[in-house]
Amino acid sequence: MTQFDSRNISMMMDFYEMTMANGYFETGGEHSRVAFDVFYRRNPDSGGFSIFAGLEQIIDYVENMHFTKDDVEYFRAQNLFSDKFLNYLENFKFHGDIYAFPEGTIMYPNEPIMTVIADLIDAQLIETAILTQINHQSLIATKARRIVRAAEGRLVSDFGARRAHNFDAAIYGARAAFIGGVIGTATVAAGQLFNIPINGTMAHSWVMYFKNEFEAFKRYAEVYPQSTTLLVDTYDVIHSGIPNAIKVAKEVLEPAGNRLKGVRIDSGDLAYLSKKVRKMLDDAGLNDCKIVVSNSLDEFTITSLLNQGAEINSFGVGERLITARSEPVFGAVYKIVAVGNGDNFEPRIKVSENVEKITNPGLKNVYRIYDEKGHAVADMLALMNEKFDLSKPFRYIDPVKPWKQREFINCTAKKLLRLYVKDGKRVENLPTLQEIRNYVKNQLDNEIWQEEQRFENPHRHYLDMTPNYYEMKMNLLYKTRSQLNG
Amino acid sequence: MTQFDSRNISMMMDFYEMTMANGYFETGGEHSRVAFDVFYRRNPDSGGFSIFAGLEQIIDYVENMHFTKDDVEYFRAQNLFSDKFLNYLENFKFHGDIYAFPEGTIMYPNEPIMTVIADLIDAQLIETAILTQINHQSLIATKARRIVRAAEGRLVSDFGARRAHNFDAAIYGARAAFIGGVIGTATVAAGQLFNIPINGTMAHSWVMYFKNEFEAFKRYAEVYPQSTTLLVDTYDVIHSGIPNAIKVAKEVLEPAGNRLKGVRIDSGDLAYLSKKVRKMLDDAGLNDCKIVVSNSLDEFTITSLLNQGAEINSFGVGERLITARSEPVFGAVYKIVAVGNGDNFEPRIKVSENVEKITNPGLKNVYRIYDEKGHAVADMLALMNEKFDLSKPFRYIDPVKPWKQREFINCTAKKLLRLYVKDGKRVENLPTLQEIRNYVKNQLDNEIWQEEQRFENPHRHYLDMTPNYYEMKMNLLYKTRSQLNG
Repeated sequence: MTQFDSRNISMMMDFYEMTMANGYFETGGEHSRVAFDVFYRRNPDSGGFSIFAGLEQIIDYVENMHFTKDDVEYFRAQNLFSDKFLNYLENFKFHGDIYAFPEGTIMYPNEPIMTVIADLIDAQLIETAILTQINHQSLIATKARRIVRAAEGRLVSDFGARRAHNFDAAIYGARAAFIGGVIGTATVAAGQLFNIPINGTMAHSWVMYFKNEFEAFKRYAEVYPQSTTLLVDTYDVIHSGIPNAIKVAKEVLEPAGNRLKGVRIDSGDLAYLSKKVRKMLDDAGLNDCKIVVSNSLDEFTITSLLNQGAEINSFGVGERLITARSEPVFGAVYKIVAVGNGDNFEPRIKVSENVEKITNPGLKNVYRIYDEKGHAVADMLALMNEKFDLSKPFRYIDPVKPWKQREFINCTAKKLLRLYVKDGKRVENLPTLQEIRNYVKNQLDNEIWQEEQRFENPHRHYLDMTPNYYEMKMNLLYKTRSQLNG
Repeated sequence: MTQFDSRNISMMMDFYEMTMANGYFETGGEHSRVAFDVFYRRNPDSGGFSIFAGLEQIIDYVENMHFTKDDVEYFRAQNLFSDKFLNYLENFKFHGDIYAFPEGTIMYPNEPIMTVIADLIDAQLIETAILTQINHQSLIATKARRIVRAAEGRLVSDFGARRAHNFDAAIYGARAAFIGGVIGTATVAAGQLFNIPINGTMAHSWVMYFKNEFEAFKRYAEVYPQSTTLLVDTYDVIHSGIPNAIKVAKEVLEPAGNRLKGVRIDSGDLAYLSKKVRKMLDDAGLNDCKIVVSNSLDEFTITSLLNQGAEINSFGVGERLITARSEPVFGAVYKIVAVGNGDNFEPRIKVSENVEKITNPGLKNVYRIYDEKGHAVADMLALMNEKFDLSKPFRYIDPVKPWKQREFINCTAKKLLRLYVKDGKRVENLPTLQEIRNYVKNQLDNEIWQEEQRFENPHRHYLDMTPNYYEMKMNLLYKTRSQLNG
C-alpha cells in the first residue's frame, strides 16, 4: 500500500474552514442555514466563455464526506478545538443541498455556476474541495476546447501526463480534456477510470534500444502490424526516419496486406518537416499514412502551423494542455450570498471599491435566454423561484447600462441551476462522460455565437437581470454602503 | 468510498509504455538490461538552479508497483497484447536499481538527477510516474524558493489549494513548497500527511455571516483569544476593518490579558494599505500586531511591494505558487543512455541538429566540485565508477569550450548520484521532510554562489566532464553520425 493508494479526500480543505467551523459551533451558529455561490470573474486567455467541469467528482466527494478517528485526532492535536466540536466531527456528514449547472455547460463570468444551501458548518467545510475540482477541470476543459478549435477538425489527443501537476492533474485533466473535445488520452489510469479511448505507440527509447532505426521499426511493425505508427525523429526525419518507415511499409507491412498507419514527428520545424514528409510518403504510394505531430503544441502554435500549410492529420498535445500553460489559474471563488432567518434568507453582499468585485447577492437562479433560432443571446439572473413570462416582450436590466430600455422578444429561457444533491444525497442521475462531451459540442456548434468563440477580442456574453433581482441588489448595496458610511 | 479514496497508482503511465513493454516481451528483450537517465534542459523562470524534489514518493511507488486482476483485464480489453504478456503483468514487480540525487539537492540542466538500471520492461513501465512526480515537485519547490528569497526573511505560507490542479497538486505541492522554504501550509491533508505546520484563520464568509464586522471580529476573538488574526478587507480596510480590529483588541482581548496577533489584507493596494495600517496599529499601541497580506502574490509582486517600503510581516501565497503560474511546466525527460551487452553496457546517444538536445550517453555519475571555502564551483560528469584524484591539479573538460586548458586546484568532490533502490527495494533510509528543507537551506546559504541565485541574469553553473567521459561521448557521437551519413 503506497501513500497514494489510500486517502481521505475529506481532509482536502483549508485549515481556516475548520477554525471557522469550530467558531460557529462555539457561538451556536452551526445550524444556521446559509447559501454560498461559486462563480468566477474572467475567462482564461481572454476567451469568450468557459466550460463547467468537475461536477461528478464534487457530488462523489460530498456524498462520502467523513472524518476518521485519525483525522479527528489530528485536529485535536492542534490544541484549538473543543472536545464537543471534535465529537461532532466524528459523526459529521454533509446534509446540505447543491444546485449546479449541468456538467459541460458553457459558462460566463459573475454568474453562480453552483449554489450550496446548507447548515453553516456543512457549507463551510466543502469550500476548498469544490473550488479545487471546478478550477482544475474547468481550466483544462476550456483550454482543450481552444486547442481543438485551432485544429479545425483534425484530431487532438492528450499526451500530457508527465508534465501534469502530479497524478490527479494527469487523470482528472485527461477527463476534462475529453469533455473539451480531445479524442483520447495517453494516460492509462484516466482511460481505465473514465472509459476514455487511450492511445500510444513508441518512445525514442524503442528506437534507441535496437541496433538501428530500421530494425526498431521492423520489430514494431511485426508486433503491431495493424496499428503501426512510427516515431521518425530519433536521428534524422528526412534522411533516416522516413526512408526507414517507407522501407518497413514496403518490406514488412504490405507483403502481409497491411498498411503503415502513421508516422509521428516530435521535434524540429513541424511546418517544414510535415510538408516534406507528406510528399515523401505520397511519392512512395503511402497517401493513407497519417502524420501525427507533437512537441509543445497549443492553440497558438497549431494555428501558426496550419497557416503555414502544414500537412498534419493529428496533434498530440502535452504540457501546454495539461498545465494550461498560457494561463494556469482558473479563479472560481466561493462566497456567502444569504443567511437564513426563520423561513427566509437574508441576502448578503460583499462590497468593494472595485465595481467588478461586488458580488451578486441572495438566492437566485440563472436562465439562459435563446432567440427564436436557438442562439443563446444572454444569461439572466432572477430571484430564486421568481416567475417571469417570455411569451410577450419582457423588460430586463443590463446592469452595465441600467438606464436603457431593453426587452427580450420572442425568446425562450432555460433554467441553468439544477438541484443535484438534496440533504446530502444525489437526486439526479449524472450523464456519462461521452454525453457530457456531446453536450459541450452541441452547445458550441448550435447555441453559442461563433463571435464568442473566436480567440481575438471575442464578443462578451451579456449577464442581465430581472427587474426584481436588480432592485433587490441595488437596495442591499445602498443599505450596506449607508451602514458603512454612517 | 469515493473514486478518490482508493486507486492503483501503478496505472499512472502513458499507454506507449505498455505497447513497448509488450513489444519487448514479444521480441525477447524483456530481460535486456538497460539504463535510463532523468535530466532536464533549462531552469524555470530563467533561474540559475532548480531543487530536486519528489524522490520519497517515487521510491514509495516503485516498491509497491503491481497490477491487479482488474488492471490486467483492462489491458486485455485493448486487444493488443498477448496472453503470455498479460500473465507476466499479473505477477509483475519492479526489480531494478535506482540511483538519484538526495532529495532537496540543488540541480542544474543536462546532468542526470536520477538513473534507472533495470530490465527493459521494468525501466520502461515507470517512466511517466517518475517524470510526473519529479516535474511537479521540483517545479513547486523551485518556485517556492524564489518567492521565499524575494520575501527577504519575512514568513511565507502556502495558501494555494483551491487553485491547485486537483488534490494531489495541492497536497504534494504543499510538500514541495515546504522543501523550498515556506513555513507552513493552509492545506490540512498536507499537514496531516507530511507533518507540515498548518495555519488559517477566517474567510470573508465569517465576517459576512455575522450582523456586522465588529460582531464578527468580537466573536472570533472570544473563541481564539490567543491566536486572533482578523481579515480586515471585507468592507473597507481603513474605514471599517482596522478601526473594528483595534476596538476588539482594546475591548475584548486586552482586558483578558491577550494581544491582537495580526490582521490580514487580501485585496487592494497592498503597499499603500500596509503602510497606512501599520501607522494606525502603532498609533493604537498595537506595535506587536503583525500584518499578513495575500492576493495573487509571487516573487515579482513581493519584490515590488518591498521596494515600495510596504510594512508586511508575512505573505500568504496562493495561486501563483501552487501552479507556478509564471512558468508552470518543468521539463524533466527520461532517456535511454545504455543497453546491456553481457557484463557491459553499450552507451546510447540521441543526436539532434540542435547541439543542446544531444544527450549525455552511457553509465555515469555526477560530482559536485567545491573550492577550499566550500563553494560549489562546478558539476562534473564522470564514467560510472571512474576514479579520479583531486588532491593534485585535475585537468577537466568544459564541453562548451573543449579546447581550453582547465584545472581544478585545491578542490574536493562529492558524488551526487546515490543508490536508493536495489533490486526493487530501498537500501537507504530517507530523511524527514524537515531534514530535506534544512538541506536545501544549507546548500543555498553556504555552498551555492549568490550569483546563481539572483533573479536577473544569474550565473550559469558549469557542467564539466572528466577527459575520459568526454572522449567516450565524442567517439560515440562521431560513430553515430558516420553511420547516419554512411
